[in-house]
Amino acid sequence: MGPVGIRMDRSIVDDRLERVRSALERADAEALVCFPSANMRYLSGFDDEPMERHLFLFVTDGQAAFLAPELSGEQIRAESPIDDVRTWSDGEEPTATLESIGTDLGLSTGRLLVDDRMWALFTQDLRATFPDAAFGLASEVLADLRMRKDETELEALREAAAISDAVSEAVRRLGPDAVGMTEAELAAEIENRLVAEGGAGVSFDPIVGSGPNGARPHHRHGDRTIQPGDPVVLDFGTVVDGYAGDQTRTVVFDGDPPDGYEAVHEAVLAAQSAAVDAVEPGVAAREVDRAARSVLEQRGYGDRFVHRTGHGVGLDLHESPYIAADNDQQLEPGMVFSVEPGVYLEDEFGVRIEDLVVVTEDGCERLNHSPRTWRPLPEEC
Amino acid sequence: MGPVGIRMDRSIVDDRLERVRSALERADAEALVCFPSANMRYLSGFDDEPMERHLFLFVTDGQAAFLAPELSGEQIRAESPIDDVRTWSDGEEPTATLESIGTDLGLSTGRLLVDDRMWALFTQDLRATFPDAAFGLASEVLADLRMRKDETELEALREAAAISDAVSEAVRRLGPDAVGMTEAELAAEIENRLVAEGGAGVSFDPIVGSGPNGARPHHRHGDRTIQPGDPVVLDFGTVVDGYAGDQTRTVVFDGDPPDGYEAVHEAVLAAQSAAVDAVEPGVAAREVDRAARSVLEQRGYGDRFVHRTGHGVGLDLHESPYIAADNDQQLEPGMVFSVEPGVYLEDEFGVRIEDLVVVTEDGCERLNHSPRTWRPLPEEC
Repeated sequence: MGPVGIRMDRSIVDDRLERVRSALERADAEALVCFPSANMRYLSGFDDEPMERHLFLFVTDGQAAFLAPELSGEQIRAESPIDDVRTWSDGEEPTATLESIGTDLGLSTGRLLVDDRMWALFTQDLRATFPDAAFGLASEVLADLRMRKDETELEALREAAAISDAVSEAVRRLGPDAVGMTEAELAAEIENRLVAEGGAGVSFDPIVGSGPNGARPHHRHGDRTIQPGDPVVLDFGTVVDGYAGDQTRTVVFDGDPPDGYEAVHEAVLAAQSAAVDAVEPGVAAREVDRAARSVLEQRGYGDRFVHRTGHGVGLDLHESPYIAADNDQQLEPGMVFSVEPGVYLEDEFGVRIEDLVVVTEDGCERLNHSPRTWRPLPEEC
Repeated sequence: MGPVGIRMDRSIVDDRLERVRSALERADAEALVCFPSANMRYLSGFDDEPMERHLFLFVTDGQAAFLAPELSGEQIRAESPIDDVRTWSDGEEPTATLESIGTDLGLSTGRLLVDDRMWALFTQDLRATFPDAAFGLASEVLADLRMRKDETELEALREAAAISDAVSEAVRRLGPDAVGMTEAELAAEIENRLVAEGGAGVSFDPIVGSGPNGARPHHRHGDRTIQPGDPVVLDFGTVVDGYAGDQTRTVVFDGDPPDGYEAVHEAVLAAQSAAVDAVEPGVAAREVDRAARSVLEQRGYGDRFVHRTGHGVGLDLHESPYIAADNDQQLEPGMVFSVEPGVYLEDEFGVRIEDLVVVTEDGCERLNHSPRTWRPLPEEC
């Protein structure tokens, strides 16, 4: 949730609507239909979780209007400078109001670009209400706009990164005190510290992958107790003004790491540096992926690096540009993404190191600066 | 996330697949296509958050198969007894694998029922891959199955409710100590306590609506500091084995409540009791809504009760049956839902009281038992 009651500047919304309208025209689309999502927030300032009630933002060449359940009306008016908010109450048929707003906005046979994350529940309703329309995805016009961050957006991303950095260092200082905690307990501890440092909760359920759990890139946290010598993958972030942080370090809190661990950590660190070094305007996203992958291949870990090198970060934790082997997207100043190679040795451990970077005029700037070593920090430093 | 590595019993999955296949046949549908969701977990045991990578579970008359990104393969195999897991790697085109699984399962011109919460990003791909298929929603066959909870499910729901009860009482005991905390701090405190009591995180971002913020039913928590005399709406729950808890109390931690507050609290409590008393097999969901609404109308708060009386709760926090004015669904033993009337006085305060109930053979059982008074509890009781 955004800070309720703080309305986004009308000038920001007007500017974004103007740019989206030009993009709609170029895409030969009649309207954009957003569902509660980062797209809706980006265009209107209003933020809520996806819900099973009909809540849409329609943007056409001439209009921008919300269709919303009555109980969200007040919040929308508080958070968004878009004045046209049409509400329906729990007793009404939302599809009837959908039909009426469609008539009003002149929707009929054109292309409707629906939010990429709109639930099938609602796309089915839109298809039934506008049977002669063609359907496409909002990202067709919004991915490009959202990919290039403006200074306000970069400020929020920098602040979220600074909070992650502070918490990352504090957690490292736990050293031997982290041994004996369960992954879930350490995840809760991380969450508390993110909030205490001023973050608005977590940008995702933190990953605390200890020992063999670290070898599973999608593991979150479980009941396993952290043991001496465990490499622990710590992947977390917070949210500032809607913008996500995302950072990973792999730490051994106490004791000696398993055989081979140091070589793996060093390889991942080298891969991450090589990829960050490759970032500059005009370079294709896939070349950054290649830079990381080459280092790991040379060191014999190519087949243990089972995911892409990174993803864009903004109002969504995962957005364009994706730093993947098949992405030809040229990097441009203002793009923000993660660089996060990893090596996963099944039943043993995993290592991942991740920072966010922003593309600058002549290279890139890392947003995260906390130590990348696997060793704990001394308690008072 | 579910407890990774604990595989759901094959017998439970077999039984559910058998029932869903009969339902598919009755619905004249060729296949069910789930996306990471409660539906996927219910049918397979595998649990993950929605993701921007193609991850589907196909269920046809003869087969059940996952199509998943490589990095989810191991987790699926650990959590689900469904053996047919086809993976694709980050370099591959997932739509090609989609086509091949379609051929394999014999999908062509029949009806595909897609997960109600499947993102448009993926329904668009399914429509492009199976241009001759017709599309419907998974809830057509799954809502009915999932609505009636079995004993294992009820056990998880009871445990989640017991944890909420314990935390609700502990938070009340804060009394004057809660004054001066911000809503966000109290929300973090609630989350910690839910985890400490054994819950797997929160079932939703807790609502801490103090003073005027309580009058906005969709408010979560903000920077407002709790004042003496503030009514505070506390709406939260945890998760046990994937099943959600959901409970609301409205508490004045210290000092004298505003004028009129006691009458509103008493009215909401009476409405909630009347609605719970109305619950029994054979009664329509709308009659339970009516019971609550009548009490509030009689007391002059009818237009301040701006939402439905409740929603089903299970693997999803909001699922069937909805306790709403227009829902004719007859209640049956095993159905679990919230009963949560509320009154919202703009710019002043809100009051909501919510318990989960399960329909029994001859009435209902409340799952929540923590005190419903608005007063704090003495520190040592």
